[in-house]
Amino acid sequence: METITIKDIAKALGLSTSTVSRALRNSYEINPETKKLVMEYAERMNYRPNPIALSLRDSKSKSIGVIIPEIANHFFSQLINGIESIAYNLGYHVVIFQSHESYEREVANTNYLVSRKVDGLLISLSSLTTNLFHFQDLMERGLPIVFLDRVPNAIETHKVVVDNFAGSYEATEHLIKTGRKRIAHLTSPIYLSITTERLAGYKQALEDYGLPFDESYVKYCYHGGKVAEENEAAVQEMLEMPEPPDAIFTASDRLTTGCMSVFQKHNIKVPEQIAIVGFTNISVAELLNPPLTAVVQPAMEMGQQAVELLIRLIEHPQKTDVFETRSLKTSLIIRESTAGKSAIQ
Amino acid sequence: METITIKDIAKALGLSTSTVSRALRNSYEINPETKKLVMEYAERMNYRPNPIALSLRDSKSKSIGVIIPEIANHFFSQLINGIESIAYNLGYHVVIFQSHESYEREVANTNYLVSRKVDGLLISLSSLTTNLFHFQDLMERGLPIVFLDRVPNAIETHKVVVDNFAGSYEATEHLIKTGRKRIAHLTSPIYLSITTERLAGYKQALEDYGLPFDESYVKYCYHGGKVAEENEAAVQEMLEMPEPPDAIFTASDRLTTGCMSVFQKHNIKVPEQIAIVGFTNISVAELLNPPLTAVVQPAMEMGQQAVELLIRLIEHPQKTDVFETRSLKTSLIIRESTAGKSAIQ
Repeated sequence: METITIKDIAKALGLSTSTVSRALRNSYEINPETKKLVMEYAERMNYRPNPIALSLRDSKSKSIGVIIPEIANHFFSQLINGIESIAYNLGYHVVIFQSHESYEREVANTNYLVSRKVDGLLISLSSLTTNLFHFQDLMERGLPIVFLDRVPNAIETHKVVVDNFAGSYEATEHLIKTGRKRIAHLTSPIYLSITTERLAGYKQALEDYGLPFDESYVKYCYHGGKVAEENEAAVQEMLEMPEPPDAIFTASDRLTTGCMSVFQKHNIKVPEQIAIVGFTNISVAELLNPPLTAVVQPAMEMGQQAVELLIRLIEHPQKTDVFETRSLKTSLIIRESTAGKSAIQ
Repeated sequence: METITIKDIAKALGLSTSTVSRALRNSYEINPETKKLVMEYAERMNYRPNPIALSLRDSKSKSIGVIIPEIANHFFSQLINGIESIAYNLGYHVVIFQSHESYEREVANTNYLVSRKVDGLLISLSSLTTNLFHFQDLMERGLPIVFLDRVPNAIETHKVVVDNFAGSYEATEHLIKTGRKRIAHLTSPIYLSITTERLAGYKQALEDYGLPFDESYVKYCYHGGKVAEENEAAVQEMLEMPEPPDAIFTASDRLTTGCMSVFQKHNIKVPEQIAIVGFTNISVAELLNPPLTAVVQPAMEMGQQAVELLIRLIEHPQKTDVFETRSLKTSLIIRESTAGKSAIQ
């Protein structure tokens, strides 16, 4: 079989070679219909890029950049291990960066990774990122990006998340069923996708069980748990309310352990005085005092699926018609920290 | 003032320009005396490399590669945060890789980082690394490398470690002073620097207090704590000895929590049946059941000092006459897991 060139595709479709070339690179300058036409034709005719150009390109790449808020967090470190487990076997290097929940560092990391010619990016947004231009710009220039966990609504690409609504609903329902009436929620900044989804699940469970939703029982930690003083102040405020909560549902690793530290410091008995359930992947949850009830996310699997989607985008851009958002299920692991006051079940 | 060139230096010292050039790049082909001569002269005459060459070089760099065994480990994640806190302010990007305690991945990571033209490397050896050629080769070619925590004896460069002997001695002494007689030691592979140093501190404390050293109370985990089954088997073996230990001193994060899991599983009471002290930086040590006595390493500070030494090597190679090994002090934080049987103190 003869090999087909960009020139052949251009001739067959009545387009310029530059249009075809840019369409095959998934450039933003080409409209989606034309891209689809070119990519489908290229796929059907078994078009393969010039091997010399390919090898030049290869010499620059086979690496994936990962930017996450912080690595000292079991959820994110498991996520990375999932990413590496797949990437390594497919011959990709994984380059890890921390944004430290800072928008500026996320932008700096992104620019650096792009200057080092990574083939694609896996991103979990920093809690302070509200402007997405640094990613939008790159995607328009054809760089594959997949988001995971903390994902932007405004960008269309593959995304891998957990079903935060269901996980949060289940945790809240469990607290209600073990007899708690005043359930507080300690969470991350409101503009993160994970925050609004978890808040919605929490609210829905309260409503379904006829408990009032009281905004004063919800506290947002602007730094997503990173700043101990902020976590402590939020918990303290709750404890000093006229009717303090009898249960607390925390939305992240750091918020959970931060909360337990405050309880320990003030000698507050868990679960007798207050129950706690955390959205957390800490490996030592069962070694804590008391062992912690937790909504566990399939972090390893999220990382694996995200990197598979990314490598597919990198290696077969023409095969992507629609972008997927995969939503994985969490699981509630019940331990002593929510042992029942009066079982309704 | 006129600028001085490599040619001027060569003429002044009676050397070839190629020798001077290689000496300034700290090449292994030039003998140390000549290098010293050239570098001192260059420094004295305020030699500055050609600005165009410099800017070309700059366009490739301002990044530091870090290879550590794993990030899901508080000691290493704190180490990285120390590295980043300094590097970021000095304008360096920090590129993080995990060796996953695999020699092959350490080599692959190293090669990748070098191909991406990092300015220098910070390395903590994988527990399976016995061959050091991949680092020796690069150092001979002039790449600055600083080792930290798990350092090789056979390579001469800056190293940042903790005083493992003293930390281990203090932990063992504490167990002896709280009345323990049969103190076991659960540790990493024997060929790691940290293992032999910690073992030596443990032995010395036993000897100083007149307790016999019994090799059967020391268990080595080949995977450094990474494989739960291996940790579990080692602990299990100890518990089944005719005279099981009344205390255990564990040498890493994973070994410590692995050990506590086995105790919990078998319902072994800590500290009543067995005391435990870990060489560990886990952030939730005080939230564990019981709160854990720990030898804590100044991980953040180790990272900061190592990156400072590395950046000095990168920016002022001519200023390095002798390599330093900095040894930082650990601290013993006493909590309930070693509460006294009978205090000798």
